[in-house]
This record gives sequence, structure tokens and C-alpha cells, in this order.
Amino acid sequence: HVDEQMKEKPFVLQLAVWGLRGVTRVILANNPLSGALILAALYWASPWQGLLGTLGILASTLTAVIMGQDSAEVSGGLHGFNGMLVSLLMGVFSSAGDWYWWLLLPVCLCSATCVFLYSGLTSLLVHWDLPVAVFPFNTVIILYLLCTGPNNPYFPHHPAVPPGVLQPNGTNVIAVEVLYGIPLGVGQIFACDAMGPSLLILGAVVLYSPLLAAHALLGSAVGTLAGLSMAVSHASLYSGLSGFNGALGCMAVGGFFTFSWTTHLFSIASAFLSAYADIALGNLLGTVGLPACSWAATLTATLMLLLTGSLAAYSMPIEKVKAP
Amino acid sequence: HVDEQMKEKPFVLQLAVWGLRGVTRVILANNPLSGALILAALYWASPWQGLLGTLGILASTLTAVIMGQDSAEVSGGLHGFNGMLVSLLMGVFSSAGDWYWWLLLPVCLCSATCVFLYSGLTSLLVHWDLPVAVFPFNTVIILYLLCTGPNNPYFPHHPAVPPGVLQPNGTNVIAVEVLYGIPLGVGQIFACDAMGPSLLILGAVVLYSPLLAAHALLGSAVGTLAGLSMAVSHASLYSGLSGFNGALGCMAVGGFFTFSWTTHLFSIASAFLSAYADIALGNLLGTVGLPACSWAATLTATLMLLLTGSLAAYSMPIEKVKAP
Amino acid sequence: HVDEQMKEKPFVLQLAVWGLRGVTRVILANNPLSGALILAALYWASPWQGLLGTLGILASTLTAVIMGQDSAEVSGGLHGFNGMLVSLLMGVFSSAGDWYWWLLLPVCLCSATCVFLYSGLTSLLVHWDLPVAVFPFNTVIILYLLCTGPNNPYFPHHPAVPPGVLQPNGTNVIAVEVLYGIPLGVGQIFACDAMGPSLLILGAVVLYSPLLAAHALLGSAVGTLAGLSMAVSHASLYSGLSGFNGALGCMAVGGFFTFSWTTHLFSIASAFLSAYADIALGNLLGTVGLPACSWAATLTATLMLLLTGSLAAYSMPIEKVKAP
Repeated sequence: HVDEQMKEKPFVLQLAVWGLRGVTRVILANNPLSGALILAALYWASPWQGLLGTLGILASTLTAVIMGQDSAEVSGGLHGFNGMLVSLLMGVFSSAGDWYWWLLLPVCLCSATCVFLYSGLTSLLVHWDLPVAVFPFNTVIILYLLCTGPNNPYFPHHPAVPPGVLQPNGTNVIAVEVLYGIPLGVGQIFACDAMGPSLLILGAVVLYSPLLAAHALLGSAVGTLAGLSMAVSHASLYSGLSGFNGALGCMAVGGFFTFSWTTHLFSIASAFLSAYADIALGNLLGTVGLPACSWAATLTATLMLLLTGSLAAYSMPIEKVKAP
Repeated sequence: HVDEQMKEKPFVLQLAVWGLRGVTRVILANNPLSGALILAALYWASPWQGLLGTLGILASTLTAVIMGQDSAEVSGGLHGFNGMLVSLLMGVFSSAGDWYWWLLLPVCLCSATCVFLYSGLTSLLVHWDLPVAVFPFNTVIILYLLCTGPNNPYFPHHPAVPPGVLQPNGTNVIAVEVLYGIPLGVGQIFACDAMGPSLLILGAVVLYSPLLAAHALLGSAVGTLAGLSMAVSHASLYSGLSGFNGALGCMAVGGFFTFSWTTHLFSIASAFLSAYADIALGNLLGTVGLPACSWAATLTATLMLLLTGSLAAYSMPIEKVKAP
Repeated sequence: HVDEQMKEKPFVLQLAVWGLRGVTRVILANNPLSGALILAALYWASPWQGLLGTLGILASTLTAVIMGQDSAEVSGGLHGFNGMLVSLLMGVFSSAGDWYWWLLLPVCLCSATCVFLYSGLTSLLVHWDLPVAVFPFNTVIILYLLCTGPNNPYFPHHPAVPPGVLQPNGTNVIAVEVLYGIPLGVGQIFACDAMGPSLLILGAVVLYSPLLAAHALLGSAVGTLAGLSMAVSHASLYSGLSGFNGALGCMAVGGFFTFSWTTHLFSIASAFLSAYADIALGNLLGTVGLPACSWAATLTATLMLLLTGSLAAYSMPIEKVKAP
């Protein structure tokens, strides 16, 4: 076990492993090697985004250490991934361009805020044995975007476009671009919309568990299908934004429950629910220029963990959903 | 007891009884005969709406059976009523006209989704011994309307008009039409705005419990009064839309608590709270073209069940609120 | 102890003490003398506002007595402060001018509604040992403003202006006015924007606990700083509206936890979180003309009480946070 070997290493090395472990928490994995691959993919796609992600994960992990959070949680990377996602999204939505150094200040503050929310929500959700997942990320990014607003003089950002916006007449969906959107949906989990890095991220998931990677692709395909059935904007389909909530919803059932045919059917249902809920929330939040982030998948996954009946029979205790 | 006699009957007959039992769950009753009367009223008002309601109740009950939900819950009709209400509202808001057969696809999917939400929310609310009530219906219909949007090419719908919209100058309220709105408020619980069927629905409530019917009419009157005091649009008053949240709020206290003068006063307070909250939520959701459905009554009834003090002394355990 | 001496006094005198105790609950204190000073400040600022506040506190306390709420809660003033805050805000937002006597009717009804919410939320939050705080006030005032709307013929009100609204070009912040805003932020806790009464309210806090008063000023300063960093409208800064959520957030940590350097740092963090969350929520709710009230501070304080780790070590049990 890696953790045993790490105990004697210097703090900086330990912090790096905690951070890399945290990177993979987003995809429900827990593997420093996959984390390194994903981080490499982010730097490949955009060095500025890679820097923001790294800073976010370090800021939130260090805040957790300073705030005296449970050390097993910290070393498991549970306090890093929300900060990383917030930082990545802040970079994507910023309209001040890359290498706008002032952005590092709110990035650090928002990442630190995620630790407060993670800790508080843990106490709240422990009654139902539910994981906090990416609720802190979703809350903090919405609050940040609301706080600054599109025309803020210091931290301006692009308003989000709701997926249900109407197409100009006479445009047809291009099938190949839609198919391209499916692997991009896996990359969009980390706010990455380039094909190469997305495939590298998919490779990192395969490295951790090929079954999880299959669920990710399947979920992204389901999400794209849901998007087509609701005639969402072509940009959503081509960029993978339609697929990533489906991918997350599908992976959540695949990751939190032992594999069986029942689980498999539920994971497809979860992907559809996540994808349709994402379109709905995207249309709602889009009216005030906000993105739906991964609210849909997070809420759907939480719902799946609460289900009674035949799915509950395959559930694993949350502590066991941890890998080497 | 009917359930005993049903055990040997074929599955289709059992399913019919479960469904009819489910129909009456909306009005906090549990009686297949009342259910048959209500369903007849729906077919009378509009055969297409009756068909949608029947399909919704069957789709959600069958989903619950497939998903392995608790069989006592299924046979009590607890998994049917949310699906039925979603289907009825989808029909009412659809702007594609009656007998638009493609609508049956989302009707089945949305009804099935209600079972997921019902099961998940049960696990969530069991900590406070609270019923799930119509939370799944309210959530799913809002998500469906958000998902499709008014201009969707496949499933267009009418945007909802908020109750607080201003009247053109010089129009006065017609007292007789307002009085007509009171029994219509009972029919609006099942999205029915014709007088005959509404009276039949009221008759079905009387059949189950005359006291509950009195509460329904009283609550609808209170809701109409609240609407008048806030100068809501005349259309809301005349169609019974102002009254049905009041009716539900009043029936909830009448149905979940043993009768006494204290309970009676609380049921009137609950009707007022539901009605005013409905106007408030209707104005809020109306800004994005969404209806407030029965959010107000459901939240108010939940609040009433949580109250401590003199009302709590009359509460009945949830399991006992079940009739033959 | 004052309570012992009060037992034999007539009911009206007891009610007065309960009410005055309730006034100070807003600032997490519990002292009839401070309450009298605050009420005097309100009458000084505006006799009409003072009358509304008094009526609100009496209406909600009497409703609690009638509804048979726990007598220790009633005599501790826990059922009065939400009603008072709702009444004060209704007066501030009403556009019908002072001495519009019809307003007293909704003031009484809304204050009474606060008791329902307080009692229900207590049952809900007791699982986490969380206080209900001002959640009922925040909910009821939003529902009231939604219900009436800006153009209501009976109860019109001013729509709220979001803090993030853009400045006209060429206006600079006036430093002295911003500094004036800091003590005004303490007064804004009671919807008071005059300097003299605000200083009297601050004096009432000093009388209860100088440490709490220091936290209030510090929090208001932090809130103003947060407002400056987000370039909020000058009116928010000058009137103290930017500061009062920071002040509440800072006082909450100062009041619910024993004093230490750790607690002190957390109280500053809480002030920043409250202030930024207030700007975010103000911008969100401002899109439909609603104010953010003290949602931000209330949610932040609740989050702080849920935190695990080094802050939790200094927490006091809620029952002990009561003073003579």
C-alpha cells in the first residue's frame, strides 16, 4: 500500500501524493498515478489551466491541514478535488484571458472555501451515510460567478449559455462531430474540451479500472442521446458538455455499487436522469447566465445512493470505495 | 379488508386496485372506489387526460414493481399517484394539442422517474417520520418543463402565467364566477377545470370521508379569499387555481391529525399559509414561465407535521393514516 | 437571575421582558436591558418603524403562547425576534409611506407565521443540534415580498437593488462615507440606517459584551472591504448594507464559540464568507427584485457550527449560549 511507504517521506512529497490522489477523486477513483496522468492532460490542453488546477488542489489541501481536518481524509485526497474543480472552472469562465495573474487570489480563496463547505456538509450528510461529493465545488463556483457578475471590473467572466437556446434555421447536426463529443464528454469532467487531453484522461480512468472507463463512455453517449432528444444547441453536443453529466452519473452507480446486471441497468438509468436533469438545470440557471456545472450528476448520484429496493442490495459501504 | 380478498386474484386485477388506491392518495385517502370515481371524472372532463393519467399510474406502479420496492408500499398505491399527477400536468401544459401520441413516451419516462425520487426521498425523510407526499411530482414536472422549454420542436408547452400579473384597467371581479371557483379548486387538485367532473371528484372525497370533503371546500374557499386579498389575476380565481393549494393544505391537517377544535383552527391556518405561499411561489416561478404546482401545499403540510406544541398532541402515526 | 424575580409579576410585565429579551436574540445576546436600548434606538430612528417592531415582537410571542410552544423558549425570547425583523423589513420595503395603517394586518400575520416556521425548523434541525436562528425571518420576508409584488394595489413595495449594479462613469468612492458605513452596518442588523441610533445599538451590544461589539465592528469592516473588492454599488457601502452580513457572521462565531486565537481567525473567515455570499445572493435575488436579507450570514453561521476540526474543539453547547 502506497500510504505506508509515504509516511517517512518529507511533507512536500506527501502533499504531492495527497494532491494527485485528490485529482482522481472526481472520477470516483483514488490512484496517484491516474492523477498524474490527468494533471498532465490538463497541462497539455492549457498550461494556464494546469497551473490553476494545481494551485487549487494545493490551496484546499493546505487549508484542510491548517484547519485540523481529519488526517485520513486529507491524505486520501478528499479535500483537494473540490478546490481543483473550482479553480479550473474559474479559469474557463474568466473573460480576462490566460495568464491574468490577479485571478490567482480568488482561486486560492475559493479553493479554501471548499474545505469549509466539505467539512460542514460531511457533518450534515453523515446521518444518511452519504458522501459530500462535488457539492462544495458546485456551490462555490455558482457563488463566485454570482459575486463577480459578467461586467465586474476586476474579475469579469463569460455568462453561460443555456443548452436549450434555439438554433438558427437550416442548420443540421453533423453526426461525426456528435460522435467526437462522446470522448470529449469525459474530458469535460475536468473542463477540458480538446480531443488529445480528453483521451489521456480516459486513459487515466482505464488505468484505474477499465469497467469505470466503459461506464464513463457509455454515460457520455447516453448524455449525448438525451441532448439530441431534447434538441439542445449544437455547441453543447459538439463540445461534450451534453455528455459529461451523463458520464458522471453513470460512473457514480458503477463506482459505488458492486457490478451486476441490475447495477448496469441502474447505471444507464442514472446516466439518463443526470443528462435530462442537466438540460433542465442548465436552462433554469442559464436565465441568469449561470452554468449548471455538475449539479445534475451530483444530485442524481446522491438519489441513487438513497434508493431502497433492488439497487440497495448491491451497495458498498462508503469506506470500502477506496482503492490502493 | 379488500387487500386480503385480492391476494388470490390475477396480477392485472391487483394492479388495477393498486392503481385506483393510488389515485386517492393525492387527496390523502386510500379507497379503490373513490379512485374509480375520480378516474371516471377525469375521463369525463377529457378522455385524453384520462388516458394520460391511467398510463402514468400504470407506468410508475410497474416501475416500482420492477425496481423491487417494498410490496406493502406498492399495494398501498404509494408509488402511483406521483406518476399520475405528472402525466396529467404534462397533458395540461402541452401545447401540441390532444392525442399527440409522441407525448406518451415522456409521460412513461417521467412517471418512472417519480419512483426513483419517491424511494430516495423516503430514505431521506424517514429521519423525521415525514411522508414523501407529492414532492416527486412537483420536482419531476418542473424538471420536465425546464427541459423542454416553450419552443421545443418535439414537446412544446405553454408557459405558466404568474397569479400576480396585473389586470387590465376597469375589470371587476364577478362574484358568481369566484364562487364557482371554490368547487373547481377541488377539481384542480387533479388538473381538472370543468364543473361537472370537479363535483364528481368532490363526491369521491365525500364517499371516503365527509369531513375531508368539508376541509377540501373550506380550504378552497380560504385560498380564494387569500387570492382576493392579494388581487391575483381573475383567471386564477375563476379557474380554481387560487383555491387548490388551500384545499390541499387544509385537507392535510384534517387528514393527518385527529379531529378537534384545535386541529380545525390549525387546518384553517394551514390553508391560509398554503394559499399565500402558492401566490408567492407562483410569482417567483412565473418569472421563468414555470407553474408553482402544489409546492406550497406540500411544504406547508410538511411544516405542519414538524410543528411542536399543541398541534403535535393530536398527530397520528403515519402508518395509521391508512383506510380500508 | 431575572427570570426568578419575574415569575410572580403580572403577565403583561412578563411579556415585556420576553419581548425585550427577544430583541437582543438577533445579536446573539439575551439581555432585557440591551433590548430596551435597541428598541429605543428604533423609535429614535423612526417612530413608525419602532411601532412595527414592537407589534411584530408582541404578535409572534403571543402566537407562540397560544400555540402552546415550549414555555422556556417563549420566556427566553426565542419566538419574538423573527417576528420583529419581518415587521421592520416590511416597513422598510413598503412604498406606501409611514403610518399606512393597513400594513399592520400583514405585519401581524407574517409575525405569526414566523412561529410556525420556528417550531417546524426546530424539529428539523435538532438532529444536528443546530439553532433555527433567523431562517424563519428570511423565509417569511421573501414570501411576503413575492406575494405582494412591486405593483400590488394594497401593499406595494420597492424592489430591491442588487449590490452588483454598475456605477455611472466617473464616480469615485468617498473614503469617509465608507468609514461611516462600518458602524451603520451594525445598525442595519435592525434595518436602521441613521448614525445616532446605530451607535446606540452598538452601545447596547457593548453593554451585553464588549467582545461581541468588537466582533460586530470588525465584521462590518470586513464586509465593507469585501464590498470594495467586488466593486459593489456605492449606495450599499455608504448605507452599511455591505457590512451587516459580515457583522452577523463575525458575531456568530464570536458568540457560539469560546474565545481563543483560533476562534478569532475563524470569525474573520466567517465574516468574509458571509460578506461575499451576501453579494452573490444579493445579485441572484436582485434579478427578481428581492433582497438577500441575512440569508448569507445565517447560512454561513450554520456552516460554521457544522464544521469539524479545530473550530469544533471550541464549541459551546447551544443551551449554554444564554446569558442573564
